[in-house]
Amino acid sequence: MSLTNATPLEVAQAARVGSRKLAILSTEERNAALTAIHKALTDGKDEVLAANAKDLEAANKAAEGGQLSQSLVKRLDLGKKGKYEDMLQGILDVRELEDPINKITSRTLLDDNLILSRKTCPIGVLLIIFEARPEVIANISALALKSGNAAILKGGKESSQSFAAIASIISHALSTTAVPSDCLQLVQTHDVIADLLKQDTLIDLCIPRGGNKLVRMVKDSTAIPVLGHADGICCTYLRGDYPVEKAIKVIIDAKVSYPAGCNALEQLLVDSSALSTTLPSVAEALLQKGVSLRCDEPALSVLQEKLDPHSAALLQASTVSDYDLEFLDLVLAIKTVSSLDEAISHINTHSSHHTDAILTASASHAQQFLAAIDSSSVYWNTSTRMADGQRYGFGTEVGISTNKIHSRGPVGLEGLTIYKWIIEGDGQVSAEYGAGGKQWKHEPLSVRDEEFVARSEEEKEILRKFRAGKVNGV
Amino acid sequence: MSLTNATPLEVAQAARVGSRKLAILSTEERNAALTAIHKALTDGKDEVLAANAKDLEAANKAAEGGQLSQSLVKRLDLGKKGKYEDMLQGILDVRELEDPINKITSRTLLDDNLILSRKTCPIGVLLIIFEARPEVIANISALALKSGNAAILKGGKESSQSFAAIASIISHALSTTAVPSDCLQLVQTHDVIADLLKQDTLIDLCIPRGGNKLVRMVKDSTAIPVLGHADGICCTYLRGDYPVEKAIKVIIDAKVSYPAGCNALEQLLVDSSALSTTLPSVAEALLQKGVSLRCDEPALSVLQEKLDPHSAALLQASTVSDYDLEFLDLVLAIKTVSSLDEAISHINTHSSHHTDAILTASASHAQQFLAAIDSSSVYWNTSTRMADGQRYGFGTEVGISTNKIHSRGPVGLEGLTIYKWIIEGDGQVSAEYGAGGKQWKHEPLSVRDEEFVARSEEEKEILRKFRAGKVNGV
Repeated sequence: MSLTNATPLEVAQAARVGSRKLAILSTEERNAALTAIHKALTDGKDEVLAANAKDLEAANKAAEGGQLSQSLVKRLDLGKKGKYEDMLQGILDVRELEDPINKITSRTLLDDNLILSRKTCPIGVLLIIFEARPEVIANISALALKSGNAAILKGGKESSQSFAAIASIISHALSTTAVPSDCLQLVQTHDVIADLLKQDTLIDLCIPRGGNKLVRMVKDSTAIPVLGHADGICCTYLRGDYPVEKAIKVIIDAKVSYPAGCNALEQLLVDSSALSTTLPSVAEALLQKGVSLRCDEPALSVLQEKLDPHSAALLQASTVSDYDLEFLDLVLAIKTVSSLDEAISHINTHSSHHTDAILTASASHAQQFLAAIDSSSVYWNTSTRMADGQRYGFGTEVGISTNKIHSRGPVGLEGLTIYKWIIEGDGQVSAEYGAGGKQWKHEPLSVRDEEFVARSEEEKEILRKFRAGKVNGV
Repeated sequence: MSLTNATPLEVAQAARVGSRKLAILSTEERNAALTAIHKALTDGKDEVLAANAKDLEAANKAAEGGQLSQSLVKRLDLGKKGKYEDMLQGILDVRELEDPINKITSRTLLDDNLILSRKTCPIGVLLIIFEARPEVIANISALALKSGNAAILKGGKESSQSFAAIASIISHALSTTAVPSDCLQLVQTHDVIADLLKQDTLIDLCIPRGGNKLVRMVKDSTAIPVLGHADGICCTYLRGDYPVEKAIKVIIDAKVSYPAGCNALEQLLVDSSALSTTLPSVAEALLQKGVSLRCDEPALSVLQEKLDPHSAALLQASTVSDYDLEFLDLVLAIKTVSSLDEAISHINTHSSHHTDAILTASASHAQQFLAAIDSSSVYWNTSTRMADGQRYGFGTEVGISTNKIHSRGPVGLEGLTIYKWIIEGDGQVSAEYGAGGKQWKHEPLSVRDEEFVARSEEEKEILRKFRAGKVNGV
């Protein structure tokens, strides 16, 4: 990794050149780089924490002056219980994942000795723009190298000392590996984001990791494809046939377990069949957890009648704009709907297409909902908080995308890859085929697990003998 | 299909609403719409050709006045030998393709009764901007409906009468089917492209079908993701160990069989090992086919010595800019390189990342080339003209993409789909899992071929009996 003050154009050009070399390194060479980074950051813990302490000191001062929020200061702190160790473990976790590149995902026999294959490969050059959390730099570096992509990193100024310390350690570690140093560059120059976002001929994908404002700014100002989501307005539609206890459990988890998460519940749609039966208990449980409820008129009137006066006094009437807001807080908008169709239509119009759920005992209603909701994740009888790469079993997560192309929902390493088409032939040409000429065979071939393809005459002979029953099985 | 003079915002909103209904139609309903369109266009042939004749008349006048090229006039003509029938057959071909949506491409058991699936679905709303060829409207309509996407079509003004006739026939045909009419809209209003390109919250993907200038204009002026390629600068690297006769055959096909194609060869890189051995025969064959050769100094001097004076007199010296041009004509730039690495570096810098090939007898050189070249299609011992959806076995082609995300190379129906993540649970919540709580199972489940899942108790019983050996096999 280089810590650089070069111009955005120079940075992008160097990344492009580095990316070509990185793309053809072996799995072992890329993994060895992750091992080296892990070791160097383990050895350099004191150095990083000392730099982090300087960032924290400056941030605390800024927070006292009111220029910075306390929650941001907390996110800066790398010294907090196990955070540094988690960062280190994350590098090893990424290293242990299956190599996402050089996988053959399709093979077709076009004609004799003319084979078309589709092989996964890195995207090329990534631009990662991130806010305060300094551990992101290690996480993203690991993901980029594992997937064979060069990465240009631009972090928030609050973490600049921590970033510089981590970058310098990673840079030193990489110099002992096959990975060219320009494959990871931390841009230190100020006010370069706009110019970086202009390098669309050299940078292939931009991943903003941060709040709504950052993501929108990036999306609005670049021709580089952007992977991410601006808002997380998640909805849950509760029907009257769903058991009360389960409804309480799921809705409390979705709203309360991490209200600042993009997968937290922001809107509860209550079917009129659940209004006077299930909703009061759910509302009571939410109020007990300190959630402010903004209710539409039918919900409000039922709850005011059914809840005890103390709870009823806490209820608020919703306004139209509450159904287009991401609260990121202990606030929930409640809306009554009279049918599945109304719920679907409301969600497709007002959710941010991130994650939406239905709670119902009816398989047929659930299947209609799952088919009709146009969101990256759609759930039946579970919490919207399930939307997460770790929970989906990806091992790690690049981010969550609400894009309609490439990668949608929680994005794992696969989202950092694309493919190329390869034809291996023997002098065949296009004009030989078609009307009056040779015919295409277009036979699908099995996508072989390359590890289990015989690599030598001896291995082939063993296979032949085994198939003929002349060798005992394992 | 509606022929519309509505505003771009109204068009996009109507398409969005229509797309939601289209997305949940069955395979049979979408196929029935294609059948209806095919029948209507078969019956309406005279009407369409009469409208087309008006376009042709206007175009011929414009061509006489020099405002339109003769090749464009030719492309307008729907009455030409078999063109209308090809258009009709194309609709049936698309109908017969496998349904690209509602396919489960991954399944994971997160925990007991908690299953994560990834299911393909339509992207949503497509904006197709195309130039003169009127048959594109039928082709694109078929592709959009088959993949469950709504499409907004905006065609070139030269074909406006033909477009209007086809659109009116398709509109009438759709009214007898389950497909909402707003799912296909032909925009007739003038000067609306800029405003259509602003509807990035309603339109999910833009596909420009036309020349370099159109594609660049679109890419430079929208936040909607664009699928396509601006240039087709394809290279072939010829090594000295490749047989002369095969080299001639492949290079002639790549350059001569359709010079206006985006997959036509524009640059021949000649390894110094092939300079005095293979190149002269290749050059002679190219000159005989009327190809102008623009040679760098080493190639020029070898050819001037080896070719007969008549041929040698036809050679031209290349300029630096010849190696960044898409000729789309019988012109070829020739450059000498001294190594595989130099060839790779030149191609990665100067090709348009569309399709590049190596001609060599050496498997190890070929594998290095295939791995290192960063293009959507990379070939060993075959012609760059192979880059085509039909040839790749996709049945039909949406276009060719040089994008680094989503879909790369020839794009089939799959490129018009994305996926959603579905969880089917039983009241499980996120906070139950992790440290001290329940553990994720993350067991990969087989992606069942849904056709072969037992659908009734009787079918289940048959399976049970067969597995127990109580029913004879087929």
